[in-house]
Amino acid sequence: MRYPFLDLKAAGAPLMEELQEAATRVIASGWYLRGEETAALEREMATLCQTDHCVAVSNGLDALRLVLRAWLEMGRLQPGDKVAVQANTYIASVLAITDSGLTPVLIDPYDRTFNLHPALLELELEKQPDIKALMPVHLYGTPCWGFGMSELIEKHNLLVLEDNAQAIGARAAWPGLHGTKTTGSLGHAAATSFYPTKNVGALGDAGCVTTNDAELAATVRALANYGSDTRYHNIYRGFNCRMDEMQAALLRVKLRHLSEETARRQAVAEAYNETIMSPYVIKPDIDPGMRQVWHQYVVQVASPMRDAFRQHLAAGGVGTDIHYAVPPHRQPCYSNEFGNLDLPVTDTLAGRVVSLPIAPPITVDDARAIAEIINRFAI
Amino acid sequence: MRYPFLDLKAAGAPLMEELQEAATRVIASGWYLRGEETAALEREMATLCQTDHCVAVSNGLDALRLVLRAWLEMGRLQPGDKVAVQANTYIASVLAITDSGLTPVLIDPYDRTFNLHPALLELELEKQPDIKALMPVHLYGTPCWGFGMSELIEKHNLLVLEDNAQAIGARAAWPGLHGTKTTGSLGHAAATSFYPTKNVGALGDAGCVTTNDAELAATVRALANYGSDTRYHNIYRGFNCRMDEMQAALLRVKLRHLSEETARRQAVAEAYNETIMSPYVIKPDIDPGMRQVWHQYVVQVASPMRDAFRQHLAAGGVGTDIHYAVPPHRQPCYSNEFGNLDLPVTDTLAGRVVSLPIAPPITVDDARAIAEIINRFAI
Repeated sequence: MRYPFLDLKAAGAPLMEELQEAATRVIASGWYLRGEETAALEREMATLCQTDHCVAVSNGLDALRLVLRAWLEMGRLQPGDKVAVQANTYIASVLAITDSGLTPVLIDPYDRTFNLHPALLELELEKQPDIKALMPVHLYGTPCWGFGMSELIEKHNLLVLEDNAQAIGARAAWPGLHGTKTTGSLGHAAATSFYPTKNVGALGDAGCVTTNDAELAATVRALANYGSDTRYHNIYRGFNCRMDEMQAALLRVKLRHLSEETARRQAVAEAYNETIMSPYVIKPDIDPGMRQVWHQYVVQVASPMRDAFRQHLAAGGVGTDIHYAVPPHRQPCYSNEFGNLDLPVTDTLAGRVVSLPIAPPITVDDARAIAEIINRFAI
Repeated sequence: MRYPFLDLKAAGAPLMEELQEAATRVIASGWYLRGEETAALEREMATLCQTDHCVAVSNGLDALRLVLRAWLEMGRLQPGDKVAVQANTYIASVLAITDSGLTPVLIDPYDRTFNLHPALLELELEKQPDIKALMPVHLYGTPCWGFGMSELIEKHNLLVLEDNAQAIGARAAWPGLHGTKTTGSLGHAAATSFYPTKNVGALGDAGCVTTNDAELAATVRALANYGSDTRYHNIYRGFNCRMDEMQAALLRVKLRHLSEETARRQAVAEAYNETIMSPYVIKPDIDPGMRQVWHQYVVQVASPMRDAFRQHLAAGGVGTDIHYAVPPHRQPCYSNEFGNLDLPVTDTLAGRVVSLPIAPPITVDDARAIAEIINRFAI
């Protein structure tokens, strides 16, 4: 395929030398867990997210789980408490909630942003005033944070855990805020994923928790290390969710290139938005108040035409993907409990979304060429 | 220190070139999870353990958790079921049980082997006939499997999950068995840890599950990958517990050297046993029927003298460690629930055990020199 949806080998090629150097350094060090590379990555991520603390962990799902478990240990949440989350998220968001013995409240997103909308969220909070926590998912790299979100959170006294898996380095702005605020610092805690395809991708699984809450950071760190605060002293019934030095060192290389990577994604997204003219395609909004980082560039095509659209693109050498074809409430593991929920926007989106190539090495010229192919689609 | 307890840098030095080559190969491949390296490691581990299946996972604790969770999903265990385990194990064994909503039954070990003894286990099974599963821990590298164990398991219809974290490549023998059987294949499933200090150590966290049960292997594999059997199709409420290609490739290097590493450990243990003559020291048994792999070489020193003994060794340039000073039932996270249990052997051992240096690059000559220092201990 001329424009594969994803080509991690080509994506990594320009960084090959730096990655090799990082791996060599870790192998030679004889120190493989909880060392200097991990500490340095934590400092760099805290700086990027503008938070006081960062705890490097095993992956994005574990980052979410550890924060929820920590809040349970700290008494900030009680077993069974309700956590609101957008229904069109990747299943990991919901798995973190149910694995922690909490109750997910799945809410339809606003189809313009794919994200929770404060006004729609407020309607749900009025219906279910016992919602205790909120997990805004910055889906596809767009901050899930709009006008009125902060006030809503304060009014309903919500604990907020950002699912920042797809939005590293994104920034939100809203009326009344002077400047912008980085995702990962918007809520009381945030979980970031470094899965290989992410904007900052490890060469394996990795993730982190960012927060300004020192007690939460310490609790997460202990829970991720068998529940021990010092060696062989277990204050919690914990897990093993540590990031290793190898992935930390490799991630530090990737992190050094984040600005240019984000700029490339933004340029590609703008090129798509400028050149896609097909009447069959709804393009995503580029919101001037949000520094979107475009983990995915997702268009909508009416569901009866979607297969034909993807086939047309494939015939033109363009790979596509669907994020996500089956929403969590329709997955076999949740359908008994949540399958009867009325989530029309989520169900509609699941039938319409198509992700276009945006990962490296896709260029602005590639995006224009792909847009031309899209514009020739007819049914 | 002339003989540090652990020196991973020195231990890794002879393999440096092979490890670098493996890392280079993975970085260049562009494939970082669920790929050829992981599949090859799984085949190699299944061969080593003489099992039909191996599933590579994130670490040893997750390997234990995933098997228990899988048995719950498969209906082989029910929430709250009792799982017997030796009380002097590392806390991870117990964390796996409680995290799965099961009930640990902590049993005192036999102080000659540090392991469960079938006769002592039988007494407990008579008292608590509702024990459904057994987690024999092959502590320090000695198979926890003696005469009568297989019959006992059959008689009480126990599900058996070996905690093989410390005993990779060990083999058990018992009257009636022709030849030997490798740990990792003794029970219905086994969990192995590749923590960096283990006999086969990753450069980070890693683990695996071995079993002859195809359904269990498939369930563990799905649970470790968000509960999905195929992409974006979640049949279970799963986790992210995958081993990455980097660690798999590095482990394959280590695995190639396991025979020589085990031989070195056995020679060092024999040298210790031959040359330690101190009347203050109880040496571990070398059981001719068990191919012990000596993850730790653990002696016992009466507790009032243990600190002085360790200080004497430190003054002689010998590092030591304690595995484990605080048993699980005395840890803060369990003491409310289990602190009142009467486990005199476990408590006594916690005060007496001392681990001597046995990890690479310790040689037979080093062991003899350390034994000389031990033999000069007097109080």
